[in-house]
Amino acid sequence: MAQTLKKRSEKVGLPPGTLIHVGERKSERTRVDLLEYDGDHYEEREIERIAECLVYKDRPSVTWINVRGLHQVERIEQLNECFGLHPLVMEDILNTDQRPKMEDFGDYIYIVLKMIYPANPGPGFITEQVSLILGANYLISFQESDEDVFEPIRERIRNGKGRLRKLGADYLAHALLDTIVDHYFIILEKLGEEEEDLEEILIKNPTTRTLQAIHQLKRELIFLRKSVWPLREVVSNLERAESPLIQATTGIYLRDIYDHTIQVIDNLETFRDMLSGMLDIYLSSISNRMNEIMKVLTIIATIFIPLTFIVGLYGMNFKYMPELESPWGYPAVLLLMLAVSVFMLLYFKRKKWL
Amino acid sequence: MAQTLKKRSEKVGLPPGTLIHVGERKSERTRVDLLEYDGDHYEEREIERIAECLVYKDRPSVTWINVRGLHQVERIEQLNECFGLHPLVMEDILNTDQRPKMEDFGDYIYIVLKMIYPANPGPGFITEQVSLILGANYLISFQESDEDVFEPIRERIRNGKGRLRKLGADYLAHALLDTIVDHYFIILEKLGEEEEDLEEILIKNPTTRTLQAIHQLKRELIFLRKSVWPLREVVSNLERAESPLIQATTGIYLRDIYDHTIQVIDNLETFRDMLSGMLDIYLSSISNRMNEIMKVLTIIATIFIPLTFIVGLYGMNFKYMPELESPWGYPAVLLLMLAVSVFMLLYFKRKKWL
Amino acid sequence: MAQTLKKRSEKVGLPPGTLIHVGERKSERTRVDLLEYDGDHYEEREIERIAECLVYKDRPSVTWINVRGLHQVERIEQLNECFGLHPLVMEDILNTDQRPKMEDFGDYIYIVLKMIYPANPGPGFITEQVSLILGANYLISFQESDEDVFEPIRERIRNGKGRLRKLGADYLAHALLDTIVDHYFIILEKLGEEEEDLEEILIKNPTTRTLQAIHQLKRELIFLRKSVWPLREVVSNLERAESPLIQATTGIYLRDIYDHTIQVIDNLETFRDMLSGMLDIYLSSISNRMNEIMKVLTIIATIFIPLTFIVGLYGMNFKYMPELESPWGYPAVLLLMLAVSVFMLLYFKRKKWL
Amino acid sequence: MAQTLKKRSEKVGLPPGTLIHVGERKSERTRVDLLEYDGDHYEEREIERIAECLVYKDRPSVTWINVRGLHQVERIEQLNECFGLHPLVMEDILNTDQRPKMEDFGDYIYIVLKMIYPANPGPGFITEQVSLILGANYLISFQESDEDVFEPIRERIRNGKGRLRKLGADYLAHALLDTIVDHYFIILEKLGEEEEDLEEILIKNPTTRTLQAIHQLKRELIFLRKSVWPLREVVSNLERAESPLIQATTGIYLRDIYDHTIQVIDNLETFRDMLSGMLDIYLSSISNRMNEIMKVLTIIATIFIPLTFIVGLYGMNFKYMPELESPWGYPAVLLLMLAVSVFMLLYFKRKKWL
Amino acid sequence: MAQTLKKRSEKVGLPPGTLIHVGERKSERTRVDLLEYDGDHYEEREIERIAECLVYKDRPSVTWINVRGLHQVERIEQLNECFGLHPLVMEDILNTDQRPKMEDFGDYIYIVLKMIYPANPGPGFITEQVSLILGANYLISFQESDEDVFEPIRERIRNGKGRLRKLGADYLAHALLDTIVDHYFIILEKLGEEEEDLEEILIKNPTTRTLQAIHQLKRELIFLRKSVWPLREVVSNLERAESPLIQATTGIYLRDIYDHTIQVIDNLETFRDMLSGMLDIYLSSISNRMNEIMKVLTIIATIFIPLTFIVGLYGMNFKYMPELESPWGYPAVLLLMLAVSVFMLLYFKRKKWL
Repeated sequence: MAQTLKKRSEKVGLPPGTLIHVGERKSERTRVDLLEYDGDHYEEREIERIAECLVYKDRPSVTWINVRGLHQVERIEQLNECFGLHPLVMEDILNTDQRPKMEDFGDYIYIVLKMIYPANPGPGFITEQVSLILGANYLISFQESDEDVFEPIRERIRNGKGRLRKLGADYLAHALLDTIVDHYFIILEKLGEEEEDLEEILIKNPTTRTLQAIHQLKRELIFLRKSVWPLREVVSNLERAESPLIQATTGIYLRDIYDHTIQVIDNLETFRDMLSGMLDIYLSSISNRMNEIMKVLTIIATIFIPLTFIVGLYGMNFKYMPELESPWGYPAVLLLMLAVSVFMLLYFKRKKWL
Repeated sequence: MAQTLKKRSEKVGLPPGTLIHVGERKSERTRVDLLEYDGDHYEEREIERIAECLVYKDRPSVTWINVRGLHQVERIEQLNECFGLHPLVMEDILNTDQRPKMEDFGDYIYIVLKMIYPANPGPGFITEQVSLILGANYLISFQESDEDVFEPIRERIRNGKGRLRKLGADYLAHALLDTIVDHYFIILEKLGEEEEDLEEILIKNPTTRTLQAIHQLKRELIFLRKSVWPLREVVSNLERAESPLIQATTGIYLRDIYDHTIQVIDNLETFRDMLSGMLDIYLSSISNRMNEIMKVLTIIATIFIPLTFIVGLYGMNFKYMPELESPWGYPAVLLLMLAVSVFMLLYFKRKKWL
Repeated sequence: MAQTLKKRSEKVGLPPGTLIHVGERKSERTRVDLLEYDGDHYEEREIERIAECLVYKDRPSVTWINVRGLHQVERIEQLNECFGLHPLVMEDILNTDQRPKMEDFGDYIYIVLKMIYPANPGPGFITEQVSLILGANYLISFQESDEDVFEPIRERIRNGKGRLRKLGADYLAHALLDTIVDHYFIILEKLGEEEEDLEEILIKNPTTRTLQAIHQLKRELIFLRKSVWPLREVVSNLERAESPLIQATTGIYLRDIYDHTIQVIDNLETFRDMLSGMLDIYLSSISNRMNEIMKVLTIIATIFIPLTFIVGLYGMNFKYMPELESPWGYPAVLLLMLAVSVFMLLYFKRKKWL
Repeated sequence: MAQTLKKRSEKVGLPPGTLIHVGERKSERTRVDLLEYDGDHYEEREIERIAECLVYKDRPSVTWINVRGLHQVERIEQLNECFGLHPLVMEDILNTDQRPKMEDFGDYIYIVLKMIYPANPGPGFITEQVSLILGANYLISFQESDEDVFEPIRERIRNGKGRLRKLGADYLAHALLDTIVDHYFIILEKLGEEEEDLEEILIKNPTTRTLQAIHQLKRELIFLRKSVWPLREVVSNLERAESPLIQATTGIYLRDIYDHTIQVIDNLETFRDMLSGMLDIYLSSISNRMNEIMKVLTIIATIFIPLTFIVGLYGMNFKYMPELESPWGYPAVLLLMLAVSVFMLLYFKRKKWL
Repeated sequence: MAQTLKKRSEKVGLPPGTLIHVGERKSERTRVDLLEYDGDHYEEREIERIAECLVYKDRPSVTWINVRGLHQVERIEQLNECFGLHPLVMEDILNTDQRPKMEDFGDYIYIVLKMIYPANPGPGFITEQVSLILGANYLISFQESDEDVFEPIRERIRNGKGRLRKLGADYLAHALLDTIVDHYFIILEKLGEEEEDLEEILIKNPTTRTLQAIHQLKRELIFLRKSVWPLREVVSNLERAESPLIQATTGIYLRDIYDHTIQVIDNLETFRDMLSGMLDIYLSSISNRMNEIMKVLTIIATIFIPLTFIVGLYGMNFKYMPELESPWGYPAVLLLMLAVSVFMLLYFKRKKWL
């Protein structure tokens, strides 16, 4: 977090709309792919000169422009100028610590959200900001990295089957949102597995590392919540937006995404409750172990301390100690010590310390 | 939970409306029972070919189609086509980790909720998703397993007495909801008994297992809350729905179910408060036991340590130790040690450690 | 709680409106008293045959029917039929684990709430469900037991002074509500005294029993809150109800009851805050006592362990130990040990352990 | 609290509007002062016979009647009759455990709130209930004690400068409210000082008394919150009240008081957060001290226990122990013990226990 | 805090609108700078006589009056009279413990908020109250100190590029707000770094000082939240204010500031969650260290206590102890002790204490 905050704070004092890429540089090149389709045909190509996009802007077919990598600011600037977007929108696209939100600018709707997928290879997960510009017949999507999570959607368009080819840009936007929300379930599954592993360790042999792992998991949950809670609002606002850009038939599909978002939140809350329960168990198990150690110490000490006293007693060098002279003295003392030990053990038994 | 999340995450990337049964396979066959009735007669039969349902769709009498087992996806698909349901509804029916919700599609209302009943035999309880499609004169109910919890309602229809035969499909839907909510009270009763048992153990002899049991109970409460809280909203929405499918006279019965739901929630919250109190008592009792152990150790040690010092003193081998030569030395030391012990005991008495 | 839940769960599967008395049987007989009054006269009698009530139903004077004991279900059923009440109302009256609520049925308003009074003799308090049916010119009140808490109101009617005789059934209902809310203050006073006693014990000599008492008090608070929070809503709804059954002049008196309810809730919340403070003090005092025990052990042990080592040293049987031969050996060792002790004591003094 | 609850519970069963002074008797006499003023003149006198007030009721000038001491119930009753107040208002004035509230009766507005000022002399603070009746051209204020907190306002009226003389009774009411809210800042300052003192003690030398002081402070905060939170609502309601009694120009001054109230609440919340932080530090410092004690014990014990074993070893009386005969035995053992001690000390050093 | 509360409480009893500077005196002089600009030209000068401002009041160009230092009350009073501001506004400007708020007076909007920037040099940060008066074509800003945080804005005006010169006073107000909110990110970055440092220390070697640092950080967060939460409301109210003073085009820029504010709040909440996690880790690490100390003590003690007993046994002076005479006695005892030690070590190994 400190990383992004550092980048963010460098912008202080600049006028709003100043175009600087705030965030990690995840891809060197800014690749622009265009996909145009309607019920009958589709065309797919990479765009070299941004101006080529202008041709597609007013065609009746649906145009999907997918931008990957945000570092070539000037290319993105050209694209924004082509489609006449507000400078603040462009600033938000480039600033990758946005909170998920949705803004209706009349001609187009601007949506920004967080896509999360497991790091491959390696532990943890990767967060990427995805911005969508939904126009009347076009959709522009901006990704931070080269990761091609939207390939299945492209595949569905190429196949030409299903609703996707027949419906407009709003349904395409829905499809992207749906993919992103679906990815949260993969993360939830991973977290669920980690949580179960932790629980097992917790019962068997908890260490300070377990505690740190619990807190690591908690931190990931906090992070995830920060992405998902506002998403709920975004989808809800989209569903209720009285915008001509979103058709009534798409509304029910957005409602479906909304339900999934609620499900993700529900699961996150349950995880959180479980984690705080795990913390209790951890602390109590530490405390129990302490008790056990104390018990062993106490038992050993309380048995041997009186015995040591007795042997010390008959180690004294007084001249007149009649017991020392007696031939039964030694066995009698041994018996006495045996009796003391047995009594102690019985006492501990009764106290349920053994 | 991890189980269902795993299944859920396998669907990622598929278009919405893709029909896959997400959840545990609780029944191999998909059994469809039909029950048609009005004030005068009733007919009851098992449906083999789904198309047979079509006949009943437009009859004025009430038709109740009860589907048990969700694994034969194609049969359910046929049913949905017969009644012209939205693909997303069908997806939701097959996806058994839905959050309870209610959606009004105009022609029909889709309700999904969780039925919970105690596992028989065995501890714990079983959760099953129940989906209801309430149309103008028909009700379709989907259950995950073969468990026949709705038999008492069928019995009431067969008897022909009471309001059930005289009223419409909405009243039948109410009867099913009522049965499901009533089952929560059985679960509450079981939880209440478990809680009282735990409390008794807690006062008598708490162990780490008690803590785990408390957390197990807490987890069950979290789980139950997750089912019941949205249910409250579902029933409340149904009651206030301005749908021609629900008649005014049914409203008051829905209000009754709403009250029961609130009662269940109230009881759950009270359980939760009690459980957190139990956690406090557990931790404090652990801490008390520690104190007791420490006290025993301290008493034994502090009495014998000075005595052991004294006997050690007269075990020294100095040539010139006048006490050792005196015939009163030994008894004097014994008396001294007695005095020290008595003083110590009195001190502990005053400190209320004995 | 488990008790009532058990009874409640026996009703599972029965159709709504089935009349079974759910709750403890607090009175064998169901006694019905009638009190009719207007500004000029009043009549008071016990009703044997329920049908006698019918005469009073349409008279312009105010009729108050007070029912004590809910176990003779058939008598209550007759009464309900006389006044044409909804079967669900009757079910709610008989089911004594209702949440306080208020329902407007047009012709009559149904109010259910909890009356709480101290058990006499004995500790703790008794909860009783009171149901009120407020009609145009009649009021029916249902109590669980024979306890006559409404006697002062009857006395005020008999005296014929004050507003009560001049105003309608709604004002009578207000008077009953007022009495019930006033009883909460008695409970609050008792709880306040218990709380002060506990606090004193807590500072003087806390034991595990104190903890249990704190939790007992907490539990009583939870229980009380469960009764009072919904009551607030009930009174507020009554006040705002746009029902012809409640006259404008009564509104301000209901507002007064509302204020009292808020006061009760405020006091409960303060109690709760205080109790959690007491829990902190308890835990800290346990922890302090542990510290004290450890300190005594440590002081005794750390003083005597080095001394015991020294005397052990000169108890060794080496042939060549020059100190043993010296006549100053013994006094020198005694002085050494004195010095060690004094040093230790000064060290503890500086550490503020003494 | 228990005190007031006791008084309150004595009223149980009496009809509403019964006039009994519930609360501590803070002043024997009920002193009534009258102050009449307009832009040009002012008159100030003590009222002996309540009926004298009637003359002022309908004059166009502003009349302020200040009542101090609530115990002569009959005088207050006469006053209420003069101005035609509702019996419930009078009951509320006399019942000094009211929650701050504001009620609009059309002809007049009834406001009740808590004035808090530091006890002088002595620690703690005194709470007094202040009731205001704001009419078209009069204001009646009721105080519990003789304390003359409103003297500065009277002084401003006498001076004849400022807005006060030129504006109506509503502005006078605002001035009283402003004085009362301003007094909260004095209390906040005192609490702030107490809090800083506590913090210093906490870092230097925390004892159980510190804990009790923290909880005492917490309790005072709870108490203060109970007075201030509803006050916020009262002022906000006054500001938004569409009453002809409050002129538009006064609205902005009420807004100012509202801001001050929010500021008081903000400070209270900050205090609360700080106090709970202090509790954490207290508990952790107790726990640290425990650790320190344990460390000393462990270091002393673990160094000397092996040494004591060694000297015990050579104190054994076996006939054949070659070491005992050697002239190097004694110095060798001394060296061995030195080595053991040094090793132990190095071990503790590495563990950072020293 | 106690400082400001002290100053604040000195004002008690004075009429509202009394002008006293409440707060720390951060600058001796009250410097007034004027900057007038429109699209074509700009003028910049320091104002000596306040009356000079009057000339600019009604010119169509935008006039920005920047006041630094609040201690020369009479100069500020003159300024307020020039622009006809309400006395309460002036009182609020001078009282530097205001809660951020926004008030619409029709002719002008009064905004007060907190600017926070890192102390330079030194740790911690400095808070300064900034008040803005936004009129039709003028903006007056009040700062407490000489710190010139708005210099970059002035620079942008001088350059004459960008939107600033072309738009009105409302856009200028937005620019100041934007600068202030941007400064929060610098603070967040600093806090983030402190938090990461703390975390590292926490894992390596936590001391009581770490706890105090955690609480210091927590306190700074509380303080920051107190400034930022109301700011959110201020910006939101500004955005939705239906005031002719704010043009529609500025609305979207205010929305941008609102988003930034939410982002700051989000980060603060995340910090808070992390801090409470750190507290858990701290307490658990303290508790772990205790365990470790106890383990060492217990291992040493339980190994040597039995051995010391054995050597004591053979140090007894009984005449008839056959073992003492045997030549194998000594080696046998040594072996026995070795066996005991090995057994103990294996036992601890099995318990996982080693």
